[in-house]
Order: sequence, then structure tokens, then C-alpha cells
Amino acid sequence: MNLKKFIREIPDYPTKGISFKDITTLLKDKNAFQVVVDEISNYFKEKQITKVVSLESRGFIVGGAVAYCLHAGFVPARKKGKLPVETIHESYELEYGTDTIEMHLDALNEDDVVLIHDDLLATGGTALAALKLVRQMNVKQIYFSFICDLKFIENGNKEILSNYEMHSLVEY
Amino acid sequence: MNLKKFIREIPDYPTKGISFKDITTLLKDKNAFQVVVDEISNYFKEKQITKVVSLESRGFIVGGAVAYCLHAGFVPARKKGKLPVETIHESYELEYGTDTIEMHLDALNEDDVVLIHDDLLATGGTALAALKLVRQMNVKQIYFSFICDLKFIENGNKEILSNYEMHSLVEY
Repeated sequence: MNLKKFIREIPDYPTKGISFKDITTLLKDKNAFQVVVDEISNYFKEKQITKVVSLESRGFIVGGAVAYCLHAGFVPARKKGKLPVETIHESYELEYGTDTIEMHLDALNEDDVVLIHDDLLATGGTALAALKLVRQMNVKQIYFSFICDLKFIENGNKEILSNYEMHSLVEY
Repeated sequence: MNLKKFIREIPDYPTKGISFKDITTLLKDKNAFQVVVDEISNYFKEKQITKVVSLESRGFIVGGAVAYCLHAGFVPARKKGKLPVETIHESYELEYGTDTIEMHLDALNEDDVVLIHDDLLATGGTALAALKLVRQMNVKQIYFSFICDLKFIENGNKEILSNYEMHSLVEY
């Protein structure tokens, strides 16, 4: 199945010169959604993943389904101030200013094999922040999964991420 | 499985007198997470659900997995300003002020049988706003699913919702 044709591209959104990748048209198609979840789950099925860590909020949608298929637990990495118990946090650069993600301190342990999932890999800023959080938990192994990889964006974040096994379904 | 014992209760959070139900401890347990998704999916498996509509952002986690299990499409109902194409929106009351959720105008159609899923039914304000959005799409049928139902909260929102078939896993 050509998944790219289910992704709606929106020119000049949110700002001029950006072609936004809208995955809602992919998610609402029952067959495409099934293929997305199956392909990611099949790719990682021999990796003994124990926890899927997903990024708020679009990462939760497919991340939850993949955790179910892999019979793994699910751990949300959330925007600042949303988690009720003790957290660790990591900030990352945005075009203007910074943003922060948090995870519960008790979310992972050293027996975990972790799959970090997000819908989109663009600059790699969010993924790198998630990696730094997960690494603090001294887990056994870390993998990455994305629906879309904007390969035309190159930077130092992605060089660091390239030390980890990574799977993506659609490349631009 | 007694799912309630996997939910962490946090007294006086976010404000004094509220006992917050933290589902992250349920989600991170691989067996409990599996049971949550299976029980919801099994309950609705004969209903010919075509789309699962979930509320941002905690509703996305189990909503995505249930959509996968039911072989349905997934539709996010998001906070204001997050969806890139033409939307319909609905506001609802918070303790102080109001909040707004949006759905893409092309998310549903009159052939759809919709399951609206969220993690928690408290005052019913968000669920009622989601119902009003989905009803604008003239879908065939609407069902509701929640992980937790705070039954001790009674109000007019819930009376309206009681006209629809509803399933919840854990009651308080």
C-alpha cells in the first residue's frame, strides 16, 4: 500500500514555505490505519519491546495501537505540567523559544526495552529530548519509530539519533 | 482483572478536595493495558463501528488501539487551533472559563457508526461537546466508551449522554 498518498500535504502551513504533512487523512482510513500499525509492529516484533514511549499528542494514536500489538506497556511523554507525579523533564529548541517534555520518574526501569514512537521526524528536536529522558532510566535498549521522516531536513540532532535503530514508513 | 487497582489515586490534585485518577500506572502495565483494549473492543465488536473519535490527548492512547482492534478509522477531536484544514468546533464549560474542541469537517460522513472514546467521564462536558460535533455530521449511530466513569458526579450533561449506549471499565 502506498501510504504517502493517504497523507494530505498542506502548502504554507503553519507558516509560508512549510508543506505540512496532515496524517488525519491516513488515520481515518481504516485499511491504511491498519497497515501503519501492522507494519510498525511487525518490524519490531522480534525486539522484545517492553514499553512504547510516545510523544504527546499525535504520537499517542499509533503508539497506543503498536504497544497493544507488541503486548508492551505504554508510557506517555507529555508537555510540561500534565503529569501528576514526580517527573523528569527535558527542553528542546523550537523555531522561536523552547518547549519541554516530561515523563514520570517511575515510568521505566533498567529491564525495559523501549520503542520511542512519534508521528513525524522533522528536526529531531523532540525525538532527541525523548531519548535524553529515556536514557536517564538506564533501560536495556532503545529503538525509534516514526510514520513520516522528513529526510530533507539535516542537522546535528539526527546525527545523534542515527546511533539508534530507526524505522519509518514514509519518507520525504 | 481488577483494573481499579492499577489506577493511581492522587489526593488533592490538581486542587484540594479532588482525588485525581492517574491512568499512567494502568497504561504502563502490559497486561492491564491489553485487558483495557480487549474489553472495550470486545464490547463493541458487533456494532459495526466504522470510526473511533477520541479526545485529545489521553483519549488518543486507548482510542487508537481500539480503532485498530475494531478495524475502524481513527478521528482525533483536538484542542482549538491544532487541526490544519476546515473544522467545526464546540465549546464547553470548565470550572473557570471555557475550552473548545475541534474536528475536521471531512472527518465523518453519514455512513459512519461512531464510537466516541475518552479516558475519563467526569462532568461530561467534553463528552457532550464531542457528541454535538459528531451529531453535526449526520452519522448513523453513536456510542460512548470510557476507561473511568466518576459516577458520583451527577449533572445535566450526563442526562443527555444517557440517551446513548455507553460502556465504562472502572466506576467510582
